[in-house]
Amino acid sequence: MRKTLLLNKDDVHENVQMPELISAIEDAFAAYESGDAQMPPKSYIDLPQYNGDFRSMPAYLDAGDWDAAGIKWVNVHPDNGEKFDLPTVMGTMIYSDPETAFPLALLDGTELTMLRTGAAAAVATDHLAVEDASSMGIIGAGVQSYTQLRAISEVRDIEEVIISDLDEERVADFIDAFEDDFDIRAGSIEEAAGCDVLSTVTPVESPIVPRDAVGEHTHINAMGADAEGKHELADEVLLDAKLVIDDHAQTTHSGEINVPYHEGVLGDDDIYGAIGDIVLGELDGRTDEDGISVFDSTGLAIQDVAAAHVAYEHANENDNGYEFDLLGLADE
Amino acid sequence: MRKTLLLNKDDVHENVQMPELISAIEDAFAAYESGDAQMPPKSYIDLPQYNGDFRSMPAYLDAGDWDAAGIKWVNVHPDNGEKFDLPTVMGTMIYSDPETAFPLALLDGTELTMLRTGAAAAVATDHLAVEDASSMGIIGAGVQSYTQLRAISEVRDIEEVIISDLDEERVADFIDAFEDDFDIRAGSIEEAAGCDVLSTVTPVESPIVPRDAVGEHTHINAMGADAEGKHELADEVLLDAKLVIDDHAQTTHSGEINVPYHEGVLGDDDIYGAIGDIVLGELDGRTDEDGISVFDSTGLAIQDVAAAHVAYEHANENDNGYEFDLLGLADE
Repeated sequence: MRKTLLLNKDDVHENVQMPELISAIEDAFAAYESGDAQMPPKSYIDLPQYNGDFRSMPAYLDAGDWDAAGIKWVNVHPDNGEKFDLPTVMGTMIYSDPETAFPLALLDGTELTMLRTGAAAAVATDHLAVEDASSMGIIGAGVQSYTQLRAISEVRDIEEVIISDLDEERVADFIDAFEDDFDIRAGSIEEAAGCDVLSTVTPVESPIVPRDAVGEHTHINAMGADAEGKHELADEVLLDAKLVIDDHAQTTHSGEINVPYHEGVLGDDDIYGAIGDIVLGELDGRTDEDGISVFDSTGLAIQDVAAAHVAYEHANENDNGYEFDLLGLADE
Repeated sequence: MRKTLLLNKDDVHENVQMPELISAIEDAFAAYESGDAQMPPKSYIDLPQYNGDFRSMPAYLDAGDWDAAGIKWVNVHPDNGEKFDLPTVMGTMIYSDPETAFPLALLDGTELTMLRTGAAAAVATDHLAVEDASSMGIIGAGVQSYTQLRAISEVRDIEEVIISDLDEERVADFIDAFEDDFDIRAGSIEEAAGCDVLSTVTPVESPIVPRDAVGEHTHINAMGADAEGKHELADEVLLDAKLVIDDHAQTTHSGEINVPYHEGVLGDDDIYGAIGDIVLGELDGRTDEDGISVFDSTGLAIQDVAAAHVAYEHANENDNGYEFDLLGLADE
């Protein structure tokens, strides 16, 4: 096999089985905390003339049974929709064999990002939500919201769903997509925040989830678009919660806590720990004493590599995707 | 055009016209020195368990008439040949539209690297070799040597070629490839070093080119495999030469001068300047007073981006390559 497998958007969607992905993401979080991963800092190319940037996210992880390497090249160009009818964020992923560095697959990194972001929320929800969680609220009905429900319903028996967004068309689309599988309806932020599980998936920089709207034992996944200034949850929510992060450097720079952290409202003592430590069993997940919990997800390059691994393995076993002799080595 | 163009090894070879590439590489060097490029430091993933590493090389450059962005993901796995019948170095390149970040093309980065490395030597040779240079020596007949001759013969009227390598099969292959176009023969290191232009393309860490072998006005391109310890030319050659670099940080870290630089044998005062400054006209190239000149090439990410630009533009105009709907945006 000296050809490179091309996996487009549909291929990624079809070949990433959510239960396997959640397991791989869990492995990745564990490998990161146990020192079995390498993840150089994201490097940025800023292009103010186009109001955009590029980010490169290389990573390697050794999960014990498998290891994987690769890089995601991703951008944020907020004017893309209006000016070019293109997504704000697009990603391309190169997935490589760590032993030889052969590029095993080239993947649509946009779909991959949505899937691995959903799976990360599911890992956190599995460890932090109440066991009998049956209701889920979602604030923000954009492209990232769909995999939240798909992934989290793999780890909890979600029956009732409340979707909250100011854009009625988005809400209708979301309900259309899920009405066969869930008791789903549009609702207010307060109604969504009262559910057993809440995922916030917005780009806001002024908190929209007030403390008194949040249910007594709600687990919140703060998944919204990372950036300096990002701020979806009221500081009181964060301060009252069992607060779990994925990566300290990323979250204090551009994750949910970045604003209160830099304002001194919230400090390291208010952070319970990293999701990887919970996965490893070095810290408890939810206990009977816990009220609100929050997972502040920034998204790690190892998640992309783990997701690419799942996509590639499944596609390769099932002869899916398109084989391409990129490097001209197939005939040698 | 919402599809991504796939350019494999043959496509890259056919669509990169050497004169256009040399011009684009010259533009890239100029853009870098004039501050119209962005090139974050290479980031490394070291995998000692496989005796290998990955390097990510993102870049953007604005050449005035055109701009370009992209990333090359490349490795060095020295055991690949013996263990897996794979090249030591393989590269994959993502070439993106800077304005929207859409991935315009995915390219074989291995072939691209060889071409842009040859073109860099040609740019330096054009500015630093004697005008009437007609003989070229090449030390090292590996995969990188072919584009040295191809590129340099575009900027000087090379008639006589001497190829020097301990591996007789490599030498025979090299002669086979070029005997129709040049008066070419195998020769010693001394014979090669006496030519008007010399390119060294080896991985040695102990100098193989002595001072007294080098012709009075020879221009040398030190192109060999960069690494800490890299050292192809005797220190006296470097000290006596008009010494031109591509990037100070890279060359003092792992370029031709890294060993004498760190031993204090050679310092910043011994470096004449950067190739970009010569291209911009801020420094002279060869003058009548000059004897030996040396271009210490480490290879910059902007070269890859410039080469990808040339490949993509030519392929797109000529309907070459394979169009692939990687991101699932073609039908929208």
